[in-house]
Amino acid sequence: RINGDRLWDSLMDMAKIGPGVAGGNNRQTLTDADAEGRALFQSWCEDAGCAMGLDALGNMFATRAGTDPDALPVYVGSHLDTQPTGGKYDGVLGVLGGLEILRTMNDLGIKTKHPIVVTNWTNEEGTRFAPAMLASGVFAGVHDQAWAEAREDAKGKTFGAELDRIGWRGEEPVGARKMHAFFELHIEQGPILEAEGKDIGVVTHGQGLSWTEVTITGKDAHTGSTPMPMRRNAGLGMARVLEAVEEIAWAHGPHAVGAAGHIDVYPNSRNVIPGKVVFTVDFRSPDLAVITDMVAQMKARARAICDDMELEIAFEQVGGFDPVTFDPACVSAVRSAAERLGYSHMNIISGAGHDACWINQVAPTAMIMCPCVDGLSHNEAEEISKEWAAAGADVLMHAVVETAVI
Amino acid sequence: RINGDRLWDSLMDMAKIGPGVAGGNNRQTLTDADAEGRALFQSWCEDAGCAMGLDALGNMFATRAGTDPDALPVYVGSHLDTQPTGGKYDGVLGVLGGLEILRTMNDLGIKTKHPIVVTNWTNEEGTRFAPAMLASGVFAGVHDQAWAEAREDAKGKTFGAELDRIGWRGEEPVGARKMHAFFELHIEQGPILEAEGKDIGVVTHGQGLSWTEVTITGKDAHTGSTPMPMRRNAGLGMARVLEAVEEIAWAHGPHAVGAAGHIDVYPNSRNVIPGKVVFTVDFRSPDLAVITDMVAQMKARARAICDDMELEIAFEQVGGFDPVTFDPACVSAVRSAAERLGYSHMNIISGAGHDACWINQVAPTAMIMCPCVDGLSHNEAEEISKEWAAAGADVLMHAVVETAVI
Ligand SMILES: NC(=O)NCCC(=O)O
Ligand SMILES: NC(=O)NCCC(=O)O
Repeated sequence: RINGDRLWDSLMDMAKIGPGVAGGNNRQTLTDADAEGRALFQSWCEDAGCAMGLDALGNMFATRAGTDPDALPVYVGSHLDTQPTGGKYDGVLGVLGGLEILRTMNDLGIKTKHPIVVTNWTNEEGTRFAPAMLASGVFAGVHDQAWAEAREDAKGKTFGAELDRIGWRGEEPVGARKMHAFFELHIEQGPILEAEGKDIGVVTHGQGLSWTEVTITGKDAHTGSTPMPMRRNAGLGMARVLEAVEEIAWAHGPHAVGAAGHIDVYPNSRNVIPGKVVFTVDFRSPDLAVITDMVAQMKARARAICDDMELEIAFEQVGGFDPVTFDPACVSAVRSAAERLGYSHMNIISGAGHDACWINQVAPTAMIMCPCVDGLSHNEAEEISKEWAAAGADVLMHAVVETAVI
Repeated sequence: RINGDRLWDSLMDMAKIGPGVAGGNNRQTLTDADAEGRALFQSWCEDAGCAMGLDALGNMFATRAGTDPDALPVYVGSHLDTQPTGGKYDGVLGVLGGLEILRTMNDLGIKTKHPIVVTNWTNEEGTRFAPAMLASGVFAGVHDQAWAEAREDAKGKTFGAELDRIGWRGEEPVGARKMHAFFELHIEQGPILEAEGKDIGVVTHGQGLSWTEVTITGKDAHTGSTPMPMRRNAGLGMARVLEAVEEIAWAHGPHAVGAAGHIDVYPNSRNVIPGKVVFTVDFRSPDLAVITDMVAQMKARARAICDDMELEIAFEQVGGFDPVTFDPACVSAVRSAAERLGYSHMNIISGAGHDACWINQVAPTAMIMCPCVDGLSHNEAEEISKEWAAAGADVLMHAVVETAVI
């Protein structure tokens, strides 16, 4: 069993870096707070006797040696970056849970044939730089590195320039490492495990996602002196598209979701009819055909809405991944670890995207989920119990050791 | 007749300060660009032999002496601040048109019994600091000065601190001056004069306005892993309220308008269901009862929408003025000036708010409007012709001289 108190203390220490405004965190990727969090993680890894590798996109790799110099490492990990108003556990549990299993293995003198590597993937959240899971996507060969470095934040700063600025670009080529397997521990971010009273989610699949950035263009004009029939109100066009997104998601059944979290209105002045709005529609489902259909319906309805209002509309896909089926052997290692440890468990589909979804394309991969209170995530009030965290890390350790000994 | 070329050159020179991104201006109130524009205006006034007064809210008063030391001045003017993506004429024409009539009177050696004062009112636009027409409102006794100084911009900077920062706070108490009359020349900002082929709008009334800041609170949550029935999506609530605003404005007939130009979504992240939105609903009509009714209907419908969606909603009135009836004698001075000069003219109701709407409460007031292309304003593409500007300034001079000689 891992040391639940030590894991919890590390989670609380990390949460002191980049504090939020309501008890959570704002440690967005490639900010000064991100750099501080990375340095703390590195110092802990070094204290645990691990050498730190760093690749050209800032992905961090802390290695605990194995007994066979030729054996490929088993990787674990997640991400330390957070949402602007994020929680203390989303991503962080997977990284510090990974560190905790190394500390426990040190304490117990457990040796494995395969080395074990704890990773921190850069820019998982995708808020500052779209898309999400950017650096693990490059690692897995899904995105081009130069394209990733050219991603811009809302202020026009690029990923590459900000990585250099915070001083966390390494020498190692991205994606050069080969993996024996990859395991990611993560909070569920949804309500199912808590509602079902289960300690552990054995993640068999991941939902797919499509992010469509929608730009509607009307005409800036005075809110007072422009008669109603002369208006080309891009904000009103957006309102109608948001309603369509809601209807389309519901119409696609219990396992489809849709919403817009990002909305920018221009020039955003009380007495100017919006001339332009830019917003991102997020559709997800475990079924690729459903995602494709929702996006197509949204585009068709949005075009019809805008034609009717003499607005222009343009679409750009700014993020997306197909539904994922995790590796059966890794999944069963997770399930039998939970079984052996006596934790209640159930199969679950991840509602969120994770670095594991990309790594699954280049290595046998599985995920372990633990419950979170009220299913709440991407909220500073995100909460888990110390016991849930410890159970997740226990299962992680057993699944990893089982995979790494032979 | 005024010198139309000289007026136009001054308009173009002022437009060089705080240039926009698309040919217009971004010279928002109490920015460095505003300070630069003020200094240029002051230097021009001093060249024209006028002494500059400055009050404690930065309102500027350039005085051309009259022949009777006891006669109250006739005031003219408008504002030099602009929208973030504003035009070159909104407000500026009224200030520089006022300066042009003094220059012409100097050229022609015209003397008046009453002094003539050209004013530049601080923060007319209301974009950076709500409400609009802030400093003329304090001058007219509508707002309290301390309250005005405490208004905050989106970054939390106050009006008072920014006024001190740019160095344009004067010693003179706000509202201490008494006026014989006030005339404001302004572009129409609507389509009527151009459509009717008239040179001059004789402004008999002004629409009233109500700005309601609406805050809808839901719950930040993950866009992927939060099932549709568990969502409390504040962005979707806003979308439904925006639709209601549109319907309510249309239902109140041809002379009512409504829209939201200001919309902020929190935390504004692609994968976070909006937990909070703040937006401002702008309703206007020449009929106070219509405004009151539109606001009441909007609040009732918005509350019902939010109750239904388990969202919280709060309203704050952040701006407002009643419909205005201008002074019959001043209005008729404008009409007979247009008549005498041979300009085509018609009565018109101002769709926008103006400093004249507040000054009308403390002095006999009227407004002169000139057409603008396609009725477009609060847009960098706002355009007028040199002839339209000159006609407006001609009428301003004749109305002012007629009022100032006796
Ligand atoms: N786990 C998580 O919240 N990842 C961010 C990518 C997503 O939106 O699903
Ligand atoms: N003239 C003008 O645009 N004033 C700003 C106040 C308003 O929104 O009407």
